[in-house]
Amino acid sequence: MSTKEHAFAGPSTPPIPVKGFDAAGIHCGVKPTGALDLALIASPTACRSAAVFTQNAFPAAPVLYDRDLLRMNPEGTHGVVINSGNANACTSAEGNANARRMAEAAEKSLGSTDNTAYVMSTGVIGVQLPIGVIEAGIPEVAAKLRPDGWEEAAEAIMTTDVFPKWASAQADISGKTVTVTGIGKGAGMIHPNMATMLGTLATDVSITQPLLQKALGTAVKRSFNRISIDGDTSTNDTVLVMANGAAGNVEIVEEGQDYDTFVDALTEASMEIAKLIVRNGEGVTKFVTIQVEGAVSDEEAHTVANSIAKSPLVKTAFFGHDANWGRILCAVGYSGATVDPTRAYLYIAPGQPQAGQAELQLVDAGTPTDYAEADASAIFAESEISVRVALGLGEGAATVWTCDLSYEYVSINAEYRT
Amino acid sequence: MSTKEHAFAGPSTPPIPVKGFDAAGIHCGVKPTGALDLALIASPTACRSAAVFTQNAFPAAPVLYDRDLLRMNPEGTHGVVINSGNANACTSAEGNANARRMAEAAEKSLGSTDNTAYVMSTGVIGVQLPIGVIEAGIPEVAAKLRPDGWEEAAEAIMTTDVFPKWASAQADISGKTVTVTGIGKGAGMIHPNMATMLGTLATDVSITQPLLQKALGTAVKRSFNRISIDGDTSTNDTVLVMANGAAGNVEIVEEGQDYDTFVDALTEASMEIAKLIVRNGEGVTKFVTIQVEGAVSDEEAHTVANSIAKSPLVKTAFFGHDANWGRILCAVGYSGATVDPTRAYLYIAPGQPQAGQAELQLVDAGTPTDYAEADASAIFAESEISVRVALGLGEGAATVWTCDLSYEYVSINAEYRT
Repeated sequence: MSTKEHAFAGPSTPPIPVKGFDAAGIHCGVKPTGALDLALIASPTACRSAAVFTQNAFPAAPVLYDRDLLRMNPEGTHGVVINSGNANACTSAEGNANARRMAEAAEKSLGSTDNTAYVMSTGVIGVQLPIGVIEAGIPEVAAKLRPDGWEEAAEAIMTTDVFPKWASAQADISGKTVTVTGIGKGAGMIHPNMATMLGTLATDVSITQPLLQKALGTAVKRSFNRISIDGDTSTNDTVLVMANGAAGNVEIVEEGQDYDTFVDALTEASMEIAKLIVRNGEGVTKFVTIQVEGAVSDEEAHTVANSIAKSPLVKTAFFGHDANWGRILCAVGYSGATVDPTRAYLYIAPGQPQAGQAELQLVDAGTPTDYAEADASAIFAESEISVRVALGLGEGAATVWTCDLSYEYVSINAEYRT
Repeated sequence: MSTKEHAFAGPSTPPIPVKGFDAAGIHCGVKPTGALDLALIASPTACRSAAVFTQNAFPAAPVLYDRDLLRMNPEGTHGVVINSGNANACTSAEGNANARRMAEAAEKSLGSTDNTAYVMSTGVIGVQLPIGVIEAGIPEVAAKLRPDGWEEAAEAIMTTDVFPKWASAQADISGKTVTVTGIGKGAGMIHPNMATMLGTLATDVSITQPLLQKALGTAVKRSFNRISIDGDTSTNDTVLVMANGAAGNVEIVEEGQDYDTFVDALTEASMEIAKLIVRNGEGVTKFVTIQVEGAVSDEEAHTVANSIAKSPLVKTAFFGHDANWGRILCAVGYSGATVDPTRAYLYIAPGQPQAGQAELQLVDAGTPTDYAEADASAIFAESEISVRVALGLGEGAATVWTCDLSYEYVSINAEYRT
């Protein structure tokens, strides 16, 4: 893998500490390179927690463990321990036992009781976790816990990631400042096949557990799921949120303005991490926003946007600075969504979408306009591109973020294990 | 595009002429390079014809034209005219008129009546067909029609194809030798996004039109659809078969042994062309056969096999000679088919599948075996590889053919129009 020439940089602002949370990251010995490979995020005050997990039919051991934990004790969470370098996936009964040992070691180091720590793993699959070095490392990482340890924690969960990923958002809820800070990892294809996507968010909001789960579902739908496709997930994908109530806001116990404010903050942080995952994509040179509108439903708009975002022919055209609208239209046509060729419109613009922005129209009612090729190429030469498809059939709309497919992508993935 | 270093060669045996059919290919001027770009296949005796068309919601003008023709006059076909270099897709009313003009020019040159010639186009989309040079070329290509003109016809329908593709099969039906000869084209992804797949088959069998259509459906399902995925098709994909009855066999009027014999011959030729399309794939260095068995149904087996075949992470691993079974298992897991991790088995072998062949088992009941990495790498270093997944749940089975994803794929597709 090559980190030196990546087209995009990581977060531009530091993470904001979250009241009552500590974080840390160390090298414990899973990765042979000596890079950070063990992260711990903890709250001495018990948290309510919520999570969404991979839909893959072969869930990894930590996913099985965390699913049970969320069912058993969603109101007494004290932290999460995460290793990189080994995914503890396809590791059978021994893998399940190792996930439990890892969680128990974290609980012991945090001085808390059973069933209070989540566990995540990312990296090579089918190889047993080196549980000895992890168990030895956990007291060490616990000793380094501190309010501003988020950057090391973010670094410690990287695999082929080029830069660490974090984001923060703040909001005022009942006169109190509520903070959300999260870290994430995810490389490989932006539709993460087995390129695991992990997200861990911590917040000091006071909210009931069912509403926290609902808020996470909404935030994930608007962020992480906009860079992926339902079901097209790795064995380990997990997004976790822990809320310790330390902000002191009036507890959110029902939907309403406070709930919406919190959902917006959680979404903002999640969306920022999701976009960083796209920008970090292996060999990525282009960040592309795809907007679809006028579909018969939001679901169909999402189907069309994903069909464009996944097409290798579209993605290589982005890489080649080639405004090949035919490939985009073709992907619309085979998406399976309801479309009418005579009502299809296609526009491109540089950068991320902005209200009132000037766009170049490439297709009008299903046929190409007489746009100037040089204008289109100039837009496609930008590192950030927006593509808008209007279908003229209804009110359905969706936005997804994707990237190009480059030589470097092939290189990284052909050589990953060798 | 680079033709010089392609890993695979074209057909190893010449096409067999089909009684009563003539073929030819010329350069008429669609392609600026001077390469052949206009093919004609014709039978002075009227043929019964059958066809399957793209499911893309934006069908190209020739597809719309041929669909109508098949409905109107499926028993009086005299030929098909095919141009490369321009797909006549996304070309609106003018495109529809040009498809008709192209067909009419062919009918005139063949001395036949209206609605007797099919038309196909492949190449750049969204640009109007240079109908003048095509109309001028059709009498010229008609003048060159001859029984052994198949190779030129196959060459004239190439776009980014590296080599021309044809195949023949013969069978004895009621004491008469029946011949099937076809030509095909298809490059780009093996799941042809907008990389158009065309197939034209000619046979001298005597068969009713409804049975010819049914036979084609079965043959396509076992061949062209094993390198593609339902719905994931270009604007122009078409497979046509014409049968002129010149073999003199007792007309096949019902299903039974003669029908089955013909279906087998039609499938054999179609399968050979389909495999050539995979071997010809852009930048392909590996030909991979994926067999899935033990699924709950054939459909689910196909779903699993396609999920593996489509995964960019699996495809780059093939390119990198990396027996990364984890990526294969992961693609099984997110396919959406019913699977049980504890019943999943994975085997690899060099070459195409053969009965009784020695295989290397990589996964046993969902966990990796202690196979030697060197043995796995040696198999993945071969240019032909077989992958077999056993799911242990039922009788469902499917085979698909796919290829690797290489630097060259990115290169060809990034630079296609530039």
